[in-house]
Amino acid sequence: MSSPDGDWSAADRRWMARALALAALADGQTSPNPLVGAVVLDAGGGLVGEGFHRRAGAPHAEVVALAQAGPRARGGTLYVSLEPCCHHGRTPPCSELVVGAGLARVVVARQDPDPRVAGAGLAALAAAGISVSVGLCSGAASALNRPFLHRLATGRALGVLKWAASLDGRQATSDGHSQWISGVEARHWVHSLRARCDAVVIGGGTLRADDPLLTSRGQRSPEPLRVVFSRSLALPAEARLWDQGRAPTLVVHGPAPTQRCNAIDDLGVDRLALAEASPRLLAEALAARGCNRILWECGPALAAAALREGCLQTIEALEAPLLIGGCGAATPLADFGVRHLDQALRFPPPRLQRLGPDLRRSVELP
Amino acid sequence: MSSPDGDWSAADRRWMARALALAALADGQTSPNPLVGAVVLDAGGGLVGEGFHRRAGAPHAEVVALAQAGPRARGGTLYVSLEPCCHHGRTPPCSELVVGAGLARVVVARQDPDPRVAGAGLAALAAAGISVSVGLCSGAASALNRPFLHRLATGRALGVLKWAASLDGRQATSDGHSQWISGVEARHWVHSLRARCDAVVIGGGTLRADDPLLTSRGQRSPEPLRVVFSRSLALPAEARLWDQGRAPTLVVHGPAPTQRCNAIDDLGVDRLALAEASPRLLAEALAARGCNRILWECGPALAAAALREGCLQTIEALEAPLLIGGCGAATPLADFGVRHLDQALRFPPPRLQRLGPDLRRSVELP
Repeated sequence: MSSPDGDWSAADRRWMARALALAALADGQTSPNPLVGAVVLDAGGGLVGEGFHRRAGAPHAEVVALAQAGPRARGGTLYVSLEPCCHHGRTPPCSELVVGAGLARVVVARQDPDPRVAGAGLAALAAAGISVSVGLCSGAASALNRPFLHRLATGRALGVLKWAASLDGRQATSDGHSQWISGVEARHWVHSLRARCDAVVIGGGTLRADDPLLTSRGQRSPEPLRVVFSRSLALPAEARLWDQGRAPTLVVHGPAPTQRCNAIDDLGVDRLALAEASPRLLAEALAARGCNRILWECGPALAAAALREGCLQTIEALEAPLLIGGCGAATPLADFGVRHLDQALRFPPPRLQRLGPDLRRSVELP
Repeated sequence: MSSPDGDWSAADRRWMARALALAALADGQTSPNPLVGAVVLDAGGGLVGEGFHRRAGAPHAEVVALAQAGPRARGGTLYVSLEPCCHHGRTPPCSELVVGAGLARVVVARQDPDPRVAGAGLAALAAAGISVSVGLCSGAASALNRPFLHRLATGRALGVLKWAASLDGRQATSDGHSQWISGVEARHWVHSLRARCDAVVIGGGTLRADDPLLTSRGQRSPEPLRVVFSRSLALPAEARLWDQGRAPTLVVHGPAPTQRCNAIDDLGVDRLALAEASPRLLAEALAARGCNRILWECGPALAAAALREGCLQTIEALEAPLLIGGCGAATPLADFGVRHLDQALRFPPPRLQRLGPDLRRSVELP
């Protein structure tokens, strides 16, 4: 059913690249679903339909593309960036629709590891006599859906840690001032990063120090879930996060918080108690709520705990052209167990991007 | 005597660029003298001589170029990147030689601010009937001789601070391990940086923790002076710096060190007592010993003190792709007085260079 590498025509590659580009248009907006894009050609190889999955509950990519194609799909080809589903979810199985459209050939970038699909979608198409090929642009397709695939494989949301620091590695002055280290271009980029995430996590310390808003400034609708992870529940009575007019807020704590925060109950802020105040349980709880990718914008202690527990897959480190120095001025990561340099966490050279005067280093952790 | 901007011919610009490129060949090797390059054309505009100043005590650039040109210089043009001297130093005045060579025109990039010259060299040439023009490529000429000009203007050696840190801004693990954070390419680049400096300064803490060699690994001859700046003189009896077979070492301390280090006296290591254990006095003392540029490879406390006292003009910050974290793991700069972000030291975006897996950010402080 799969084609060997190099067996694809230039047209195959071009159309699958188009399907992937369509899929990426909804980056961060489809959770818990994957990103999917689809292209339909008629029997003569002409483009007659295309589409992508916009958000959970909205039509699947194949549905959009086939609806656009109508009867012109008969005898044609479908390119789709992920295996068509074959189960009844919020929408009917795409495999039935594809078969019904009378397509001659279906090209799929990669299987869907969702246990309800996992090859059964492809088998249903082949059983109906359609020529099915799998594996075209599979690397790019996997990279595109890394958060979705990570959640399915681990049961945890993929974690992105973001920090902004000075050239000398400080996140704040020794008196705790951190607004603003990075410039407007970098802060705008952070808003766009939030728009690609399902939730943004901070700790109680960041809430108390910065009273942040944590939204994408309207770049995503709905805004990502704003999560305050607090062992103690020693949280301020007034905070911009308690106003849920713009975006939802969730307070997560351990089994026995030492403090009470009446404000959050009075204001109806959602609350979740974990069996243990652990970043791993938080990443699992958010995955269970449908988050594929979460952004950690927390201080050094929570960031180090998340790193230690394997909750971070990507680091977005912003550096501003200034020096802060200081004894006790915050750095991005507290202790995560490195005593000797042999134990340091090593990774390939970061990708670099200038954001106004600032520098972004983007790291994929091994 | 000077030409207005834009009044230079394309040939003028090309020949002065050549003189500057020649001057740069001896970068870091001429102290206490400046870098100087010279080009001689004959009366027809053909190249007949060129040269540069290789080291203090060696012939000046004009001498080398005019010797090469011989009688062909008569009626010709001299391009020189700095005003010719007019005083008797270790070598006779260049202005006399230039006049004697019968040149018709001399083009100079900028005046020499040395009080023994400072325009008098140009005046001597003009008085002899030579057409003298000043100011061609003056910005590049000043940049090239920034260390020399800084020493003349301030009485202190220009300071370059170098550090190597992890992505999270750590110079060492919490147990003090720092060898090696950066890779071989970056370490090789540090050797070439040392080759452009007259002295390399560390504090007693770095000596105790790293027992470094601090040489250019033969890229400069003689090697830069290795300076240990120790308030207390609590220095180890054995250290690679005490072996002066490869490079000279100087121990600098305050007026009343609390400890003794018999080893350095027994081994004949040079010693200097300052009126106060201050980086500024050290930069002055090294300038008085003929250093134009010194490299600070010290720990966070001495680096912060040097910054506070205006001893640092350039920062070379190396970043390796690893995470260290830790409570108390060293960062590049201790406190230098920043409490609020308004007080942070801001500078233009650094120049970037990849050094193998590492990233160099090069900063000129305002």
